[in-house]
Amino acid sequence: MPGSVLHAPPMPTAPVTPALLDALRSIVGDKGLILDEHEKQPFLTDWRGALTGQAGAVVRPADTNEVSKVVRLCHENGVALVPQGGNTGLVGGGTPWPTHQGIVLSLGRMNRVLAIDPIGYSITVEAGCLLEKVREIAADHDRLFPLSLGSQGSCTIGGNLATNAGGVQVLRYGNARNLVMGLEVVLPNGDVWDGLRSLKKDNAGYDLKHLFMGAEGTLGIITKAVLKLSPPLKDVCTAWMSIRDLQAAIEILSDAHQASEDNVGACELMTRAATDMVLRHIPGVQDPLKGDSPWYLLLEWSSSRARNDGTEGMSEKMENFLAEQLETGRVLDAVIAQNETQALNMWRVREGVAEAQRAEGPGLNYDISVATSDIPRFIDEGVKAAIQISPTIRPYQLGHIGDGNIHFSFKWPANMAPAEMLELSPKVTRAVNDLIVSMGGSISAEHGVGIEKLDELARCRSKTELDVMRTIKRALDPQNIINPGKVLRL
Amino acid sequence: MPGSVLHAPPMPTAPVTPALLDALRSIVGDKGLILDEHEKQPFLTDWRGALTGQAGAVVRPADTNEVSKVVRLCHENGVALVPQGGNTGLVGGGTPWPTHQGIVLSLGRMNRVLAIDPIGYSITVEAGCLLEKVREIAADHDRLFPLSLGSQGSCTIGGNLATNAGGVQVLRYGNARNLVMGLEVVLPNGDVWDGLRSLKKDNAGYDLKHLFMGAEGTLGIITKAVLKLSPPLKDVCTAWMSIRDLQAAIEILSDAHQASEDNVGACELMTRAATDMVLRHIPGVQDPLKGDSPWYLLLEWSSSRARNDGTEGMSEKMENFLAEQLETGRVLDAVIAQNETQALNMWRVREGVAEAQRAEGPGLNYDISVATSDIPRFIDEGVKAAIQISPTIRPYQLGHIGDGNIHFSFKWPANMAPAEMLELSPKVTRAVNDLIVSMGGSISAEHGVGIEKLDELARCRSKTELDVMRTIKRALDPQNIINPGKVLRL
Repeated sequence: MPGSVLHAPPMPTAPVTPALLDALRSIVGDKGLILDEHEKQPFLTDWRGALTGQAGAVVRPADTNEVSKVVRLCHENGVALVPQGGNTGLVGGGTPWPTHQGIVLSLGRMNRVLAIDPIGYSITVEAGCLLEKVREIAADHDRLFPLSLGSQGSCTIGGNLATNAGGVQVLRYGNARNLVMGLEVVLPNGDVWDGLRSLKKDNAGYDLKHLFMGAEGTLGIITKAVLKLSPPLKDVCTAWMSIRDLQAAIEILSDAHQASEDNVGACELMTRAATDMVLRHIPGVQDPLKGDSPWYLLLEWSSSRARNDGTEGMSEKMENFLAEQLETGRVLDAVIAQNETQALNMWRVREGVAEAQRAEGPGLNYDISVATSDIPRFIDEGVKAAIQISPTIRPYQLGHIGDGNIHFSFKWPANMAPAEMLELSPKVTRAVNDLIVSMGGSISAEHGVGIEKLDELARCRSKTELDVMRTIKRALDPQNIINPGKVLRL
Repeated sequence: MPGSVLHAPPMPTAPVTPALLDALRSIVGDKGLILDEHEKQPFLTDWRGALTGQAGAVVRPADTNEVSKVVRLCHENGVALVPQGGNTGLVGGGTPWPTHQGIVLSLGRMNRVLAIDPIGYSITVEAGCLLEKVREIAADHDRLFPLSLGSQGSCTIGGNLATNAGGVQVLRYGNARNLVMGLEVVLPNGDVWDGLRSLKKDNAGYDLKHLFMGAEGTLGIITKAVLKLSPPLKDVCTAWMSIRDLQAAIEILSDAHQASEDNVGACELMTRAATDMVLRHIPGVQDPLKGDSPWYLLLEWSSSRARNDGTEGMSEKMENFLAEQLETGRVLDAVIAQNETQALNMWRVREGVAEAQRAEGPGLNYDISVATSDIPRFIDEGVKAAIQISPTIRPYQLGHIGDGNIHFSFKWPANMAPAEMLELSPKVTRAVNDLIVSMGGSISAEHGVGIEKLDELARCRSKTELDVMRTIKRALDPQNIINPGKVLRL
């Protein structure tokens, strides 16, 4: 969290010695070993440039067998390792701490698609496979891999699964963990768990795959996955509407499930302020609906059935629905994209927020979730709490309301001194997170914990919950060598 | 597994002493304690009457606080406990072993619906709530709780979640674990984990709820849950068809996803032999499609959007689809249910199998899964393997093919001596399970492990996988007092 000061955990692990480097080289060869300081840098710094750590080497194995040997070597020597995929995380989960004495284990070379089964709707890939590549190969076979993220050109499946990634299609398809049938995982002692099964149902013992997913590489290293595919979407309707208030947003979404035949693909909340910020900073984006209403929704319905002449498609259904919602007074004004360009523009308004925020200047971002029905109260009270601490702070609330997931953001006023930001930031963070805890919400809906939310997690979840997590971590990784100092302090 | 001989594990736990009974009574009162041998019986015998165990007492707490106190008392005294819901399991997961010296902890009195949020599509219930009650209360609020099982009038949500129940709606909605947003769990030391959050997204630390679901009560006791609701289904079309062969079944299903707009609700495989068995034993059931084709499908498409005049509903879509599939030669003949009575009759053929099998006489049942695309090869080779062991055995293969889940069943010939059945059973089981393992499948797709599949699980899953499970079990329940001797032998 910007502004909070995290102290690096002590790392009582062994350093990378010349003998260890020789042993690593004998496993992965010269092309699997990066020792040069300059070449190591991209693996030691998170992509935002916010965090930088250390590592004695970056090790890039070519296959599961090499991963297993590297991990076993580390295990036998008490050397810590940080698994890393595309290094696109937002909380430092894949970035080593400055006190890290071990290695970074990059899965980037393991980037093969191993099999695709269009009839069985599955694809088997190595962990280092780019998300975009998985999506493209699925599309080549008339199938959809629904996980969709801004970073899909550089993030990898292994990282997506280790962090249980979200994105804009969660409402319909669920988080990354819902898209997985089987996993292969290298355990902290180097053993390989072969759970690479193409099974939709398996109640033969504990479900281990769900434990490794979302653990951010602290319990084992995902090396392969069998992923579920879906039929491609062939009839998509995107609409943009101004709405009465936040309660209306919840009610519109509630009705939309039924009216769309359970085909709601996305329901994204935007504000006038966030829209204007995008229009200020991102060239070529059009305002889908002029006016100065404070709240907007981007609503997308999508079906895998191509529209035939004479049948009712998604846009006719959306039209009827919006007419009804206008009558109830929940929708004030609305426009349906008439072509792909218009739909794309609506999405650029929504997805341009991240870039616009960077251009707009420093601020605070919270990736939170509460029960969908609690969103209006959370936003109302959260903004009030922040303004009480900093009366000139500018709120930008938006997000995946269908998932109860708000990207709750603030920008500091233009003239505020960095020292003041630094002083106020932890206070706002604490107020927001306390509100979340009081409402039974999550301080990390989709981005994970990594380094940045480590101490807030420890503060916001119960001792009992943290104890169970620590018990599992200690049992599976008693030396604390697999991504130490992430998610939990031991 | 009928015919296999399971030896009861040693139970080095403390017996139920008079002092412990006094302490239990002071927690749950007289009405929460069953000591009478006759009254205890229903809790000590599984509903099929196949397994009977022992318990010093049946304890029936009224709320989470009482569960916590009972578990803590057991923890402090080293007394084992078997958590039990509706006692409708098929593998003895809720039945104590004959060597069990501790108590049965029945959740049956904790049967309240605590809250329903139709706008947020969620319902919060206690573990002892009947599945049927959850479904009814959801329906009263124009919502669907999709989990649907034959035993829904007597099974409880706690048991459904502890066993990650399946049923006939998995294809569309997923297993029980997919329907859960949050859990409250009493841990083996009596601590209460409050994970009762109404969150669709939560990446703040390890996902503990998925660990407790499917663990069959061996890691903790689920006491409350927040469940996801869906819009009710308002346009359902059920069809029955004879098909060319098993490969055709897989291809029909593959195409159906798209043609139905991803609205396939169920795709159930039946054989002529299984249909005839139902017709022989269940009065009032009609054959949906006369003829002697060997393979049939029950295909149901369902949408949450009511059908309006002039728009294309599920039945028009199904009609077009079946016409196309007839042309490809995959479908030989088909009938679409013209009203609810006809649809119900098709389902009675499929669901009557369990009852018809009991009437038909002794046999073997395997609840297995493989990759959907592997079903034809599995059935072909599995039947051959069984017939090689017992040439007169009669196969009945049916099941949820969309989930890759086959209920792979056999009946012994009418004149076979019980001793011969007993001799052949373990051989058939071993051959079937070896085939499953060689195909990367599961020996328990939906029924779990419990007592009955304990030793086959140990044989069929890798040492690495079993080690990870044991490590987790030992870490969370070091005394092995929570449902000991289920899922894993320690």
